[in-house]
Amino acid sequence: MPVLVMKFGGTSVATLDRIRRAAKRVGVEVAKGYDVIVIVSAMSGKTNELVGWVNETSPMYDAREYDAVVSSGENVTAGLMALTLQEMDVPARSWQGWQVPVKTTSAHSSARIEEIPSDNIMAKFQQGMRVAVVAGFQGVSPEGRITTLGRGGSDTTAVAFAAAFDAERCDIYTDVDGVYTTDPRVSAKARKLDKIAFEEMLELASLGAKVLQTRSVELAMRYKVKLRVLSSFEEQSDTAGTLVCDEEEIMESNVVAGVAFSRDEAKMTLVSVADRPGIAATIFTALSEAGVNVDMIVQNIAEEGRTDMTWSCPNDQVKRAEKAMDAAKESGVIRFDEMIADMDVAKVSVVGIGMRSHTGVAAKMFRVLSNEGINIKVITTSEIKISVLIDRKYMELAVQALHDAFELEKSA
Amino acid sequence: MPVLVMKFGGTSVATLDRIRRAAKRVGVEVAKGYDVIVIVSAMSGKTNELVGWVNETSPMYDAREYDAVVSSGENVTAGLMALTLQEMDVPARSWQGWQVPVKTTSAHSSARIEEIPSDNIMAKFQQGMRVAVVAGFQGVSPEGRITTLGRGGSDTTAVAFAAAFDAERCDIYTDVDGVYTTDPRVSAKARKLDKIAFEEMLELASLGAKVLQTRSVELAMRYKVKLRVLSSFEEQSDTAGTLVCDEEEIMESNVVAGVAFSRDEAKMTLVSVADRPGIAATIFTALSEAGVNVDMIVQNIAEEGRTDMTWSCPNDQVKRAEKAMDAAKESGVIRFDEMIADMDVAKVSVVGIGMRSHTGVAAKMFRVLSNEGINIKVITTSEIKISVLIDRKYMELAVQALHDAFELEKSA
Repeated sequence: MPVLVMKFGGTSVATLDRIRRAAKRVGVEVAKGYDVIVIVSAMSGKTNELVGWVNETSPMYDAREYDAVVSSGENVTAGLMALTLQEMDVPARSWQGWQVPVKTTSAHSSARIEEIPSDNIMAKFQQGMRVAVVAGFQGVSPEGRITTLGRGGSDTTAVAFAAAFDAERCDIYTDVDGVYTTDPRVSAKARKLDKIAFEEMLELASLGAKVLQTRSVELAMRYKVKLRVLSSFEEQSDTAGTLVCDEEEIMESNVVAGVAFSRDEAKMTLVSVADRPGIAATIFTALSEAGVNVDMIVQNIAEEGRTDMTWSCPNDQVKRAEKAMDAAKESGVIRFDEMIADMDVAKVSVVGIGMRSHTGVAAKMFRVLSNEGINIKVITTSEIKISVLIDRKYMELAVQALHDAFELEKSA
Repeated sequence: MPVLVMKFGGTSVATLDRIRRAAKRVGVEVAKGYDVIVIVSAMSGKTNELVGWVNETSPMYDAREYDAVVSSGENVTAGLMALTLQEMDVPARSWQGWQVPVKTTSAHSSARIEEIPSDNIMAKFQQGMRVAVVAGFQGVSPEGRITTLGRGGSDTTAVAFAAAFDAERCDIYTDVDGVYTTDPRVSAKARKLDKIAFEEMLELASLGAKVLQTRSVELAMRYKVKLRVLSSFEEQSDTAGTLVCDEEEIMESNVVAGVAFSRDEAKMTLVSVADRPGIAATIFTALSEAGVNVDMIVQNIAEEGRTDMTWSCPNDQVKRAEKAMDAAKESGVIRFDEMIADMDVAKVSVVGIGMRSHTGVAAKMFRVLSNEGINIKVITTSEIKISVLIDRKYMELAVQALHDAFELEKSA
């Protein structure tokens, strides 16, 4: 029988009633003839509670013990979901990560899945079991210790199971009904997309649209897993939600698929850096070693032999970056006059695979912002994305103007 | 290095502060030179919450899923305890049941421990680890599924580890400071015992003194594990609490060690049963098959060919017993005139290994009760115990009178 993977996030299993509602959706797919693998998160709030306890107990915690503690929430939901399905006369049982086993690297609290043997669960399907409920977010290391995949890791568990079992589709049930052209809270004209290409979703995910864990999209792209994002709080239908798929499966699409944004950015500038070959490498190696995730980079030649170096990074890494730069200055590795951190910035991006074949998207974006009187501080581009850093107070205005200008409220 | 097992119950690990306090006690034993195996329960209330969810989800639950769900509380405490010890610079790590592995039977939710291989943890001790924190109450079946040992099972986990690791002692930390001659809430003269024999503890445990799980005492007796019950809320000392040990280790003891009681009893009588060979077997087989735990049994010959059959069983099994007897009557297997259930009874027992060599204990007990005007409904005796069923309203009076008469407030 064809296999379907269904993943239910924390809000979709937050109470026994919601677990029952999710189980009913599973029952519908079983009735259609699917063998179903259900991946569950912890009941919402549970993982945060556990993480809080670990942090309070040991601020510099041993990641192996962190994993042993925080993985327990998913085990509870998996058992309760299996019991709920059994009550509905659907043959089901639960699996914890080590029982499958979900084999991962030993990188505790951010482990990567290496292998998921399918024989164990497949044998049960052949014996008449119809649903395997698997605790998401967790696995087991080569040393036999429990690992976790990082926050949002249950999405990755779901996609990895879909790949390992050659599933027809991987349905991600969440508290939103799909992927939107932009956040509906910022633009009332935001429209739900029926389909979006993996590459676009990947850019949106990493740009702060928190619908899917970035790694799950990467994995789905690599293994061509059809991924559907849909709400567990709306009517069930075969066309609900947004299908994340290969771009070949999308017949028509707008040049720009969506407008993403992030408020958690900061802009940092080293003023008048003594310029010499390799100075950029020196600066960004030091930042990387300090654990700063640099996003955009701009270099201006100020005068002969001096340069201004500007980058953006997450807000909460500014202190760390300042410390690293001060240390590098003190040790004489780099020289600069001044360091400026601007916390009041936001990043706004337009994303679309159509950009590959359409020119003028960047020019149009800059014109739209200019017409609104919005000054662009930093620009970066990729093949299918243009991002700008602007004053944070203009963020909503920029998103709305771009959404209008690219006519995202209309489908292709 | 000698191994010590320390078990902390739910109230002893109910909060992060209490876990810290428990960890400090462990640190003291490590400093003395012990390698310590710590067995932890779930934070108090957690297991009840999980059991509640399972019951609400599925009243006739699959015990395998029940075990998967309710075992998760111990995993959380084990990880938090290991982290707390690490914060105190004590080398420690946590183990879940399947990681040791604690091999059990497949009798889910009341599994028995079959084997605990010590090599895994011993190797870590040899590498410098000083504390192995093990999640209590759980194990793994031959099929690789999670099992639990029944409520209070962490006591049994602790004793089994003490036996497997040939531990010097097994310290059970709880919310009472030891085993008393009777419940101090019933008699103000109750005295804490410094030592008690396994056999006596076994009778007290099964008579409703809820300090230790009965099976843990059986196991300790079989493997000669020195068991100490002490409070985690009082000062640490080598002589604190009560030592449960072989009777040879107890130099002097009172004839009677303690007075136990239970309010959860009911007395049931079948009036005028048609008597024939094998009638008792028929009745008690039917009750046993209905899941009724019959405790005391009395048979009176009423008249030629007729008999009254009386037994006691837990209060909450009366309905079940009535159903079984009605069914047996209907199918013609047994005949009786009337069935009477008396819920207003209590069981009071005196226990002591000294009874083996001292006569007259029963006579004295009956005289004491008679002097107080208390009518005895049923009597049973074992080698070291005499139990009577009386009206519940006289229970406290009976306990106090017996405690006085046997001078239990004085040590031997």
